[in-house]
Amino acid sequence: MTRRFRTAMTERLGIEAPVILAPMGGVAGGALAAAVTRAGGLGLIGVGYAKEDWIEQQFDAAGNTPVGIGFITWDLARAPARLDVALSRKPRAVMLSFGDASPFADRIKKSGAALIMQVQSLAGAKQAAALGADIVVAQGIEAGGHGADPGDGRSLLPLVPAVVDGVRPIPVAAAGGIADGRGLAAALVLGAGGVLVGTRFYAATESLGHANAKRRIAEASADATVRTRIFDTARAIDWPDEYTGRALVNDFARQWHGREPALQSAIETEKPRYLAAAAAGDTDTMVVWAGQGLDLIQEVLPAGEIVSRLLTEADRALSGVG
Amino acid sequence: MTRRFRTAMTERLGIEAPVILAPMGGVAGGALAAAVTRAGGLGLIGVGYAKEDWIEQQFDAAGNTPVGIGFITWDLARAPARLDVALSRKPRAVMLSFGDASPFADRIKKSGAALIMQVQSLAGAKQAAALGADIVVAQGIEAGGHGADPGDGRSLLPLVPAVVDGVRPIPVAAAGGIADGRGLAAALVLGAGGVLVGTRFYAATESLGHANAKRRIAEASADATVRTRIFDTARAIDWPDEYTGRALVNDFARQWHGREPALQSAIETEKPRYLAAAAAGDTDTMVVWAGQGLDLIQEVLPAGEIVSRLLTEADRALSGVG
Repeated sequence: MTRRFRTAMTERLGIEAPVILAPMGGVAGGALAAAVTRAGGLGLIGVGYAKEDWIEQQFDAAGNTPVGIGFITWDLARAPARLDVALSRKPRAVMLSFGDASPFADRIKKSGAALIMQVQSLAGAKQAAALGADIVVAQGIEAGGHGADPGDGRSLLPLVPAVVDGVRPIPVAAAGGIADGRGLAAALVLGAGGVLVGTRFYAATESLGHANAKRRIAEASADATVRTRIFDTARAIDWPDEYTGRALVNDFARQWHGREPALQSAIETEKPRYLAAAAAGDTDTMVVWAGQGLDLIQEVLPAGEIVSRLLTEADRALSGVG
Repeated sequence: MTRRFRTAMTERLGIEAPVILAPMGGVAGGALAAAVTRAGGLGLIGVGYAKEDWIEQQFDAAGNTPVGIGFITWDLARAPARLDVALSRKPRAVMLSFGDASPFADRIKKSGAALIMQVQSLAGAKQAAALGADIVVAQGIEAGGHGADPGDGRSLLPLVPAVVDGVRPIPVAAAGGIADGRGLAAALVLGAGGVLVGTRFYAATESLGHANAKRRIAEASADATVRTRIFDTARAIDWPDEYTGRALVNDFARQWHGREPALQSAIETEKPRYLAAAAAGDTDTMVVWAGQGLDLIQEVLPAGEIVSRLLTEADRALSGVG
């Protein structure tokens, strides 16, 4: 690893590569998290809406490789015993996103895990700093999966320097649309200590994502994503109003996006149809969460190779200008 | 100027600093454009909805300093004689944004002016390349003023490398939320040849913006901007559906954003009220277009000083990592 990749973030986390795996629910399992850690970064298991036994399984899958874990904060509040299960596995870090972190922050810090808090605004970053975040993840609306709604949400490039200035000296990780080493290099010159990468690792060999979804990610353009609530509505998952999710535009999105009340009215037939399609890996109907880095993702690769390329490309991008 | 700022874009435009003034309608006049050019960048007069005489006045204000000019393409189509007036002044470049450029592209290129085309997607960039653009401006939804609606629009950080790859070897300028040298440095490592900067120059001493608006820009946070149609509705300016404008949240936005049909119903009283407030420089009601780089803008400065700081800060950001 070159010196250029040693940052306040890598020092705080005790890692070599300034790359954190986004804890994508049901996609970032123990095998993927361990692969990212082994490549020098920090792998985070993505709990999503899963239960204790799934968390145990994924830590088992990570084996002896140190990994962390990430929760959806408002969902953790509904079944908080999952935090005990996670902390009993001595995670290197616990990441909280989307909701009120105050009931959990102190316990995480006292456990010895680094507290990573993801935010979507400058005001949110300052709240995270006040709660004792060890790392603040600044997430732009270009991110795949859930985040601030773009109507009033913030894009990453101007958000990062604002958050860096706002929470200094806490290290900041940039999240949203970063899929190659040029994005990593940009994050570093903006003052971030590294990046949190989702979609690119969704398409990793080791991810738990469906093979069909990985193929769609490798083929799609970011001109064709949408931020929407319909995939939460279809699954009857009650996300707080301020968050929507970015996904590939597919037949289901074309049918229902912008027609949420109609989808709600048809939910008795649409929910089972949706769930059956998801079980079958039918990407015309099931959600494929994806960020706007899609154009930069051409193939499914092992996670270690992805980390390695991110670093090589970032090195080249910085040397080309510097 | 250090070698690091010599790019394919600066070579093509014959400038020294990789900074283009966004042609903000009614804000980027001849004095501001000339100041940016004198500082080593390229100043563009922003026509907006103005007529021939205003264009002549602004070229006069620029004096002997070479500047360019930018049109709103769909509005230019309604009164295309303005292009003749502009070309008769031998602009260094003509920028077209928002609409079908095909009726104008050839004439601009034949005049000897560089053709700068602003786009909001990868598909748009490829169309601009096909029309012969000399420079493609990739505009993210964090930009102030008009652009793609964020519902399906693209953020800048992942858009730039996708457009760079998509139109190579045409130089790309990054636009949207870039307000300090860290943003310029990020654009360069993403592969852009430079940046197009709006809001930061809105708050320049030489800009035609109202002093009250400049003060609001220096004070506001980017947590408080909104993409909306209400300011176009209030002025009865008929923008195509796919574009909205980003502005500071003010009393007028709090009253009407999300209630466009109600505003339309009240237009007989709201339009004169709006126009009177705008004439009086009342920023609680009048629009202050602003991008998400707001947090990085603290004071009103001469444009030459802004360009100089952009370069110094970019140098520092690149050296800090590189």
